[in-house]
Amino acid sequence: MKKAFFTFLLILAIIGCKQNSKTTIEDTAQLEQKYPSDVLSFLDEWKILLGDGTSNDSLVAYKKEGFFYVQNDGESDWVVYKTPNSGVTSRTSSNTRTELGQKAHWIPETGGKLTGTLKVMHVSTTGDATKSSSYSVVIGQIHSDEGHENEPLKIYYKKFPGHTKGSVFWNYEINTAGDNIGRFDYSTAVWGYDFSDVGESATEYPEEPENGIALGEVFNYEVNVHEGIMYLTFTSENHETVRFTKSLIKSDFTTREAIPEQVLKVYANREKGGGVERDTAYAGEINYFKQGAYNQANAKSTNAEIYGGDIQKQYDNGSYAEVWFKHATVGASTRPNGH
Amino acid sequence: MKKAFFTFLLILAIIGCKQNSKTTIEDTAQLEQKYPSDVLSFLDEWKILLGDGTSNDSLVAYKKEGFFYVQNDGESDWVVYKTPNSGVTSRTSSNTRTELGQKAHWIPETGGKLTGTLKVMHVSTTGDATKSSSYSVVIGQIHSDEGHENEPLKIYYKKFPGHTKGSVFWNYEINTAGDNIGRFDYSTAVWGYDFSDVGESATEYPEEPENGIALGEVFNYEVNVHEGIMYLTFTSENHETVRFTKSLIKSDFTTREAIPEQVLKVYANREKGGGVERDTAYAGEINYFKQGAYNQANAKSTNAEIYGGDIQKQYDNGSYAEVWFKHATVGASTRPNGH
Repeated sequence: MKKAFFTFLLILAIIGCKQNSKTTIEDTAQLEQKYPSDVLSFLDEWKILLGDGTSNDSLVAYKKEGFFYVQNDGESDWVVYKTPNSGVTSRTSSNTRTELGQKAHWIPETGGKLTGTLKVMHVSTTGDATKSSSYSVVIGQIHSDEGHENEPLKIYYKKFPGHTKGSVFWNYEINTAGDNIGRFDYSTAVWGYDFSDVGESATEYPEEPENGIALGEVFNYEVNVHEGIMYLTFTSENHETVRFTKSLIKSDFTTREAIPEQVLKVYANREKGGGVERDTAYAGEINYFKQGAYNQANAKSTNAEIYGGDIQKQYDNGSYAEVWFKHATVGASTRPNGH
Repeated sequence: MKKAFFTFLLILAIIGCKQNSKTTIEDTAQLEQKYPSDVLSFLDEWKILLGDGTSNDSLVAYKKEGFFYVQNDGESDWVVYKTPNSGVTSRTSSNTRTELGQKAHWIPETGGKLTGTLKVMHVSTTGDATKSSSYSVVIGQIHSDEGHENEPLKIYYKKFPGHTKGSVFWNYEINTAGDNIGRFDYSTAVWGYDFSDVGESATEYPEEPENGIALGEVFNYEVNVHEGIMYLTFTSENHETVRFTKSLIKSDFTTREAIPEQVLKVYANREKGGGVERDTAYAGEINYFKQGAYNQANAKSTNAEIYGGDIQKQYDNGSYAEVWFKHATVGASTRPNGH
C-alpha cells in the first residue's frame, strides 16, 4: 500500500509538471536543427554567396549542408563556412567563397564596424609555394561597390603544408589612379608572415612562424572605420594584441617612389601592379563588409588540386577552406581607443 | 480524510514544480522593471537626447522616468517618448525632444531603412493656430550631418485643439544653394492636412480632417532610402495605404519658378525661405535617421504655454508631446516594391 501510494504521488507530480517537461523536449529538438542565425544573430543584415555558386538574401533560419551550417565543438556552437578550391565563383573573382556580403553599404567617412571571433579549421594543402595566395583563405573584407570595385581590406589566414602554425596578415589594395591593371596589394603581418613571404620554389616553404596561429586556434579581429580612418585590432589568448591604423581617404601610394619594396617584389612578374593610387584613396566611395571563407586557392593562379571540380573529392582530399565563427557583430563605427 | 488527502497531493505537486514556479516569479519581476530595450531590440544602434537636455549613448537596459520608459496598454508593451514644450534643446533647435539619433550614418546613395509602429498620445494643446508648427510633433526624421545640416525628411503628427482627429504629413527641407537663410520645407499630406494648412487667426482652426488619425490610433511608417531615392509608405488599419517617392540626389527646386505656391504662402512673412536648392540635393552628403518625439511647440515660434519652464506643470497642463512606439527597425535599404 505504501509503495502504491508513493507511485501514485509520483505520477501526480509528473502530471503536475507536464508543461514544464514538454518545454524541455522542444528545446532539445530545436538544438538538433540549429541554424547559423541561431548562433550569429546579426545574419539578417547579410546576404551570402556559397562555394557552389548559389546565393541567398534571407539568412534567418537558413543553412546549406556542406557550406554553411552549425557545428558544436563540445563547448560552443559555431557557424561553419566551407568552400572548395574549385566551384562556382562570383563575377569578379576566380576564387570560390562561402562568404557573407553586408546589405548596408557605407562610405569611409560614415564608416562602420565589423568584429569576429573565429578559428580557421582548414586551408588548401596543395598549391605553388611561390604564389602569395597559396594555402590561404580570406576571413574578412572591406569591398568597394564603385569604380574599380577594389578591396581596401582583406584579412588572410595562410598556413604552409606541414606547418602547425600559420600566419594572419591583412592586405590593403590601392584605389588605382587610372587603369586598374596597375592595382596592387600592400600586405602587413599580424602574427607570422605577410603576403610577400613565399617559398623559393613551388615545393619549398619558409620556416614555420614562431608566433603563428594554428588551425583550430581562436582569435578575434575588429575592423572599425571611423571618420575615414580604418582601425584594426587583432587579439588571441596566447598572442600579443596587435593594432593598426590606416587612412582610407588619404593615399600613402601616390607616387612610384612611395611604392614599398615588398610590392615591387610581389608584382615583379605579374601582369597587374605597377600603378599608383589616387590621392583621396577611397574617399566618398561606397563600400561594404564581407565575412566568412573566401578561398584563395584555385587551379589557375595557385596551382591547387581541384579533382576535376568534384566538390566531395576536394573535401575528402584537403582541397578546401573551412572557417568557424562563434561571435560576430556589424554596425556603426565607434570612436577608437587604444590606437 | 478525502479532503486532507487532496490537500496533501496539492502540496506535493507544488513542491514537485518548485523550480518551475520560481522561474515564473522571476519572469514577473522582470516584467515590472522593463526597459525600452526589452521592447525595441534595435536600441543598441541609437543614442538619445531627452527633453531635459540629458543624453545617453548606451540605450541597452536604460530608461528615464518621465521621458523614456515602457508602458503596457493592456495588450502590448510600448516605449514612451515624452517631452515638454520647454526644456533643454539641442544645439541647432529651439524645440525640445526625446528622440533617438542613429549611430550609423549614411549617404543617400548607400541609403538605409527606418520603420515604426506608433501611436501619438498627446501634442501641445496651446499655441498660435496661424503657425504651421503649432500643436505638432515630429515622429521620424532624416537629418543631414554635413553642410547646412538640413533635414531631407520630417514626419509630423499635428492635431488642432478640440479636434478628435489630427493629420499626418511629411516635410522635405531643401539643401539650400548658397546661404541657408533661404531654406524652406515643402510639405505633403498623408492623412488630413499638410504643414501649410493653418488657422485664419491664432484661435481659429480649419475643420477637423475627415480621414485624420486620432490620438491613440496606431499607424506605421516606412522610410526606405534606396540608391538615392526616398520611398515612403504609410499604413493604418482604417486608412488607405499611401506611398511617396522623392529623389534625394536630384533637386525639384533649383529655380524660383519651380517653387510651389504652398512654399510662397508659408514663408511669405518669415525671415527664412526664398532660396533655391542645389541641383544635386543631398547627393553624397552624410545623413542619419531620428525617431521619437521632437516637439514642435515652443513659447517663441508657436506661442505655446510653458508654465515658466516647469516640466511637471507642463505635463499636468497639456504642454507636452508624447509618442508611443511598439515596433521599429533600422537597417539596410531594400529594393522598393509597390511604388
